[in-house]
Amino acid sequence: MPRPITTIGFDADDTLWHNENLFEEHHRKYCELLSEYHDSDVIEQRLYETEMRNLELFGYGIKGFTLSCIETAISLTQGQIRSEEIRRIIDYCKQMLEHPVELLDGALETVEALAKEYRLFLITKGDLRDQERKIAASGIAHCFEHVVILSDKNVESYSRALRKENIAIEQFAMVGNSLKSDILPVLELGGQAFYIPYRITWKHEAVESESTNANRFFELDSIGKLPDILKKLDSHDL
Amino acid sequence: MPRPITTIGFDADDTLWHNENLFEEHHRKYCELLSEYHDSDVIEQRLYETEMRNLELFGYGIKGFTLSCIETAISLTQGQIRSEEIRRIIDYCKQMLEHPVELLDGALETVEALAKEYRLFLITKGDLRDQERKIAASGIAHCFEHVVILSDKNVESYSRALRKENIAIEQFAMVGNSLKSDILPVLELGGQAFYIPYRITWKHEAVESESTNANRFFELDSIGKLPDILKKLDSHDL
Repeated sequence: MPRPITTIGFDADDTLWHNENLFEEHHRKYCELLSEYHDSDVIEQRLYETEMRNLELFGYGIKGFTLSCIETAISLTQGQIRSEEIRRIIDYCKQMLEHPVELLDGALETVEALAKEYRLFLITKGDLRDQERKIAASGIAHCFEHVVILSDKNVESYSRALRKENIAIEQFAMVGNSLKSDILPVLELGGQAFYIPYRITWKHEAVESESTNANRFFELDSIGKLPDILKKLDSHDL
Repeated sequence: MPRPITTIGFDADDTLWHNENLFEEHHRKYCELLSEYHDSDVIEQRLYETEMRNLELFGYGIKGFTLSCIETAISLTQGQIRSEEIRRIIDYCKQMLEHPVELLDGALETVEALAKEYRLFLITKGDLRDQERKIAASGIAHCFEHVVILSDKNVESYSRALRKENIAIEQFAMVGNSLKSDILPVLELGGQAFYIPYRITWKHEAVESESTNANRFFELDSIGKLPDILKKLDSHDL
């Protein structure tokens, strides 16, 4: 039986606040902008290819994504795109970066309640500046002992972050919407994981459902159910 | 008299490795690209204005800088710029992001020598992904106890970082090429500071020389002189 959880790590984007919906809206406007040149599915496919090719160099985040959008637009239109249209892609980028942070239903109450009984960490990835802005604007930063912003989330980066914060993996649980970034690396390290899918999953984050350790893996349909399941786990009622 | 220094923070860009020279080269190519539309000084002035207007939103780093370059090029040419030229601006961006890390003369020997006697921290700002890449490629990451990447360097962010790492400010010295980002905030907090100017200073980092506390502030012309001056300070020989 796993040791009791003392420390909980929360992913941020699409776990505590909405994020993928902004990208969805951006994709819609981007496809509309290029609609005189190509169909949506061609545009989406080429954009994804560009993003994956640039990921190592650009990392995650809105600015790198925007550069990939511009690059794709030039290539897809064989240079026919007008600079005014490129200017609009930069405007979309700024609109995303300025967008107010919208917490998911139940996120505030859940995090505030859990902060009274657990050490909470915010563990997110992506653009440093943008993540800091969202954390400051979220109104829930005070619930977290530390905020950790990683350039990528994998076994190695979790391991390093937990070691640095002196967290024993057997007493650690991660909460997040991405099997690939939040759940599987933590399970592999020996921690516990609560998977709460978001309405949309970015293709790059999607993985085939794998056999998971039922003892240490839980899937919930909303963050509001977290306190209850933690209580049950604590009293060995699960 | 200040307490003896036990911990040294090093800035990275233009303190340990060359960086501003890449931007200098980028500016040269960018002005050349737009030379049929405007003179260099007009281009430089407008680019700087765009950068400053976008800084709060984009933060520091090559990707945000590139988006500002594209935005400026479209506006300066009143939309006349060809998409092939925009594509070249993105190529310059990638070349900068891929550029090998070139250590400053004496940086390796100095840091390796000091690591034997002091706790060393790397304290840098900017784009998380790009800074991590450069640190990994630098070959000197092993000399540092921790790497701290901040989105901005000011009194508040230094104070938070030092508190998190349990470093007493009276025993801390910062080494860097920017008075604004490396020296003045640390002096204000009560620490000691070693200022080593680089050949080029980005306009945004330039500040008027201020009266500094001679007791805690030192200017050197190369990083190689650091061990000597630290030794003299330690034996109260300065």
